[in-house]
Amino acid sequence: MDDGGGARRLRGDAVTLAHGAGGRAMRDLIDEIFLKAFGETRVSGLEDQARLALDAFGGGTLAFTTDSFVIDPIFFPGGDIGKLAVCGTVNDLVVGGAKPVALTCSVIIEEGLAFADLHRIAESMATAAAEAGCRIVTGDTKVVPRGAADRIFVNTAGIGAIPADRSLAARHIRPGDALIVNTTLGEHGAAVMAARGDLGLTSALQSDCRPLGELVEALLEAAPDTRAIRDATRGGVATVLNEFAAASGTCCRIAEDKLPLREEVRGISEILGLDPLYIACEGLFVAAVPQAQTEAALAALRKRSGGEAACQIGEVVATPQGRAVMTSFFGGDRLVDMLEGEQLPRIC
Amino acid sequence: MDDGGGARRLRGDAVTLAHGAGGRAMRDLIDEIFLKAFGETRVSGLEDQARLALDAFGGGTLAFTTDSFVIDPIFFPGGDIGKLAVCGTVNDLVVGGAKPVALTCSVIIEEGLAFADLHRIAESMATAAAEAGCRIVTGDTKVVPRGAADRIFVNTAGIGAIPADRSLAARHIRPGDALIVNTTLGEHGAAVMAARGDLGLTSALQSDCRPLGELVEALLEAAPDTRAIRDATRGGVATVLNEFAAASGTCCRIAEDKLPLREEVRGISEILGLDPLYIACEGLFVAAVPQAQTEAALAALRKRSGGEAACQIGEVVATPQGRAVMTSFFGGDRLVDMLEGEQLPRIC
Repeated sequence: MDDGGGARRLRGDAVTLAHGAGGRAMRDLIDEIFLKAFGETRVSGLEDQARLALDAFGGGTLAFTTDSFVIDPIFFPGGDIGKLAVCGTVNDLVVGGAKPVALTCSVIIEEGLAFADLHRIAESMATAAAEAGCRIVTGDTKVVPRGAADRIFVNTAGIGAIPADRSLAARHIRPGDALIVNTTLGEHGAAVMAARGDLGLTSALQSDCRPLGELVEALLEAAPDTRAIRDATRGGVATVLNEFAAASGTCCRIAEDKLPLREEVRGISEILGLDPLYIACEGLFVAAVPQAQTEAALAALRKRSGGEAACQIGEVVATPQGRAVMTSFFGGDRLVDMLEGEQLPRIC
Repeated sequence: MDDGGGARRLRGDAVTLAHGAGGRAMRDLIDEIFLKAFGETRVSGLEDQARLALDAFGGGTLAFTTDSFVIDPIFFPGGDIGKLAVCGTVNDLVVGGAKPVALTCSVIIEEGLAFADLHRIAESMATAAAEAGCRIVTGDTKVVPRGAADRIFVNTAGIGAIPADRSLAARHIRPGDALIVNTTLGEHGAAVMAARGDLGLTSALQSDCRPLGELVEALLEAAPDTRAIRDATRGGVATVLNEFAAASGTCCRIAEDKLPLREEVRGISEILGLDPLYIACEGLFVAAVPQAQTEAALAALRKRSGGEAACQIGEVVATPQGRAVMTSFFGGDRLVDMLEGEQLPRIC
């Protein structure tokens, strides 16, 4: 009889195994935390699948992507696992030229997570999705016993519409293209490392975690022949350069003295013995742009939030094919290889 | 230079943190295990998002769903976490009348998981996806340190096309409709509980985990005015009946002596003190069908694998609104409430 009341719902302060069992407690958790935060999803949340009119895709191509997020700590300067989960998936869509349409949200929660933490994460997701111009339309909730997961893992999947006249792909990159970035390197990874606390570091650094849709649209308007864009997350800028080079059979050549780097990131990298080229970003993309459109691209980016530090970091050349190379401060060349082994675990 | 060779890839027997770091080891893991199993995804796997022509959706509506799977144990009689992850998401699409088009696969792996286990899971996913007539088109891989997850969690998201003339929804259910199921209750949950071993049970039970698309298509052909279909997973048949009643403002009335139940499931339920109405299934749906089309629906289902035991378990009546009621073996009525608390943790 008490089917929709608020008083008896979410008794206690934290998630229990019952909240993952498929019954009333789980529905209460979904209603009270996720549907309240995500708002408009209430209707589709009642069927097993969200339903979307194809009009939203305007006759173009559908883009489809997913990411799971296991970051530690779940709250960090500049964001939390919820904001990260939305931005990460949105950014994987927008770097393909897609306009994000809808997201899913699937959580795996360790028994004992405070409702307050879950509320905060759900609110972050809703805010980030609104900023990115898309909706969270369906989801799933699992709860596992203490020790079977670490607080919360969040998966998001996303679909978006790629307009018919766009074909961004790493294989389109060719010698002569400029390599540009929209912001400084490594802020997400450095902020998270500093926040872990066991290193005794304090810093004013914030994660650069943000939806990149507006910046990408500005870039494509100013530089319509942009070949490819990719956000640099795990593995950092070095990994994107290697992927670009491998997919296009070119060489991505960058100059160390052109890399935009905040003093704090440089400092933390030195303390930890990390190379900023490999540190994860969550609000940075690398784009390959025809040389003739590079100035227009940079000017457009610099006018926007998150693009103020946009600059060219290098160019595409013919050889050595499939490799990334950096001219160091001292004038010599060094190979920028794929990341070997692990650098920063649980950074996203 | 050794970029595609087989010899140096996947050194050792098990996953390490490096396999989640975004660098070469991660790419090797994805190439050697997931892309080899999923085959055709190689191309889209190289961009950050899969791209799908809208032709695949034929002018209808797009269905979008997701589920995370945390089942323990990860291998069980009749399936494993990979098969379950594909069937679970496929079934959430098909019960909405959608034809599955594409799936994502995102895994969170605990450091130390044997490559052999991961291979087996990926192969299961590929086999189940092929059986369901769809493709796994993109994915994500995270690795967490020992103790931060339990072996492996798998998330799948799926998109499908709902033909323009279909509108299955629980709100369409009305008094007089028949309530039917395609198979016997509780086999997934009972098989998994028996497999956990700590109970010392042995049984011939197998999970009923299977893609339901062919059965749903057969049902809709035979009973084109079917109102709603839903698969009974966590929370079992009782939960579906409550959801049907709540969404349509009707009462779902069933008869205990009509419930199809294998002797082994009844036995395990009695030993564990579980009610089979609440035990998770992974190959069972409940459908509300107009009475006039019920015989045709059952006849069509019984001709197909997974539908041999199809039967009517009850009917939709007007009151008490929003509730499910069961006539017991002894003739009395009892309320079939939403599951309170937890019954079987980590069952899916």
